[in-house]
Amino acid sequence: MAGKPLQPDAARMKLHWSPRSPFVRKVMVAAHELGLTDRIHRVRTVVRMGQPNADLLPDNPLSKIPTLVLADGAVLMDSVVICEYLDALAGGGGLFPPSGPERWTALARHALGNGLLDILILWRNERDKPEPARLPELLDSFAVKTRATLDRFQRDAPALAAERFNIGHIAVGCCLSYLDFRFPDLGWREGRPALAAWHEGFRARPSAQATEAVDE
Amino acid sequence: MAGKPLQPDAARMKLHWSPRSPFVRKVMVAAHELGLTDRIHRVRTVVRMGQPNADLLPDNPLSKIPTLVLADGAVLMDSVVICEYLDALAGGGGLFPPSGPERWTALARHALGNGLLDILILWRNERDKPEPARLPELLDSFAVKTRATLDRFQRDAPALAAERFNIGHIAVGCCLSYLDFRFPDLGWREGRPALAAWHEGFRARPSAQATEAVDE
Repeated sequence: MAGKPLQPDAARMKLHWSPRSPFVRKVMVAAHELGLTDRIHRVRTVVRMGQPNADLLPDNPLSKIPTLVLADGAVLMDSVVICEYLDALAGGGGLFPPSGPERWTALARHALGNGLLDILILWRNERDKPEPARLPELLDSFAVKTRATLDRFQRDAPALAAERFNIGHIAVGCCLSYLDFRFPDLGWREGRPALAAWHEGFRARPSAQATEAVDE
Repeated sequence: MAGKPLQPDAARMKLHWSPRSPFVRKVMVAAHELGLTDRIHRVRTVVRMGQPNADLLPDNPLSKIPTLVLADGAVLMDSVVICEYLDALAGGGGLFPPSGPERWTALARHALGNGLLDILILWRNERDKPEPARLPELLDSFAVKTRATLDRFQRDAPALAAERFNIGHIAVGCCLSYLDFRFPDLGWREGRPALAAWHEGFRARPSAQATEAVDE
């Protein structure tokens, strides 16, 4: 046991997972980057905002994925907490700068990418509602915020390219790929060449290629 | 300057703030607990899901509060990132256990409290929509998840009471107080005496009393 004290526990981690959730994808990209995929047992779990998953509720009463169940029964949520846990499991500091300006830059960038994902999920839910339930005011608001955030990412692209890959990059990369997956008509690359170029680099990473979202 | 290197910068921090946002309240409770309130310049900022705030967008393109602007122009979001930044500013380890099981327990508990707040905000938005736009399926789903999460908190109440006050406690406390503020008819205390008792202790803290939400 000495030398590998975490492996026995880690081998039995259970991840409530879906191939299409961008939040789950962040965790799987992190696991690939950290070399931890073979320690995670994935369980296909379907969640919908309007339909709590009765099998998931005992592990996560919010009925959200990703949810990670550790060997001792402890449950970790949400995606960024799980990612930081995996980072610590791999030795620490790989994807989460431990302190100082690098840490706040990474966490704030992650929050921006993750916050945009939140908006995109709500946008997609709203867009797919039957006509009388769909609120144009909300759709417009989501479009404005998405545009503003993408413009911020475009201005941030030189820093994204220059800095060491971390949890912030994972959030932005998964967010842009989610736009390709669910909002192909948005044309997010238009007027944002530096961001588009950075995203090509993200897509080429083995961790991104192994976790690309698929429609079944 | 030596000995107080952070004060000059910290003194000029600007916080996009509202007296009613539970996410802002988490930050202000943290600031009170850490003795940092006099370093935060609060700016009243109104946000609504369907109406991006044009004055806020340059600082936070997601148009969400809290948003913290540092002296050097760097911007921190969302609430838990701001809280961890303030914790580090105060020396570290006050509200965020630095590592080990204590850290994951605190962060997972925070995620549960914060995730329930997300649901409550959506629930309130849905509840207040005009009849044809209101989806009963969503309202039911929010109710189920809220009940399940409150039951989890009730089971967690002995641990909440026993463990050192941290960011997890802040999230759960602010969440329960938000229920009192916006969902007074829900009767969340019913069948959850241990949680209700813990919340009385939270409400009695000076940091909670100084930040109680008010309707204007």
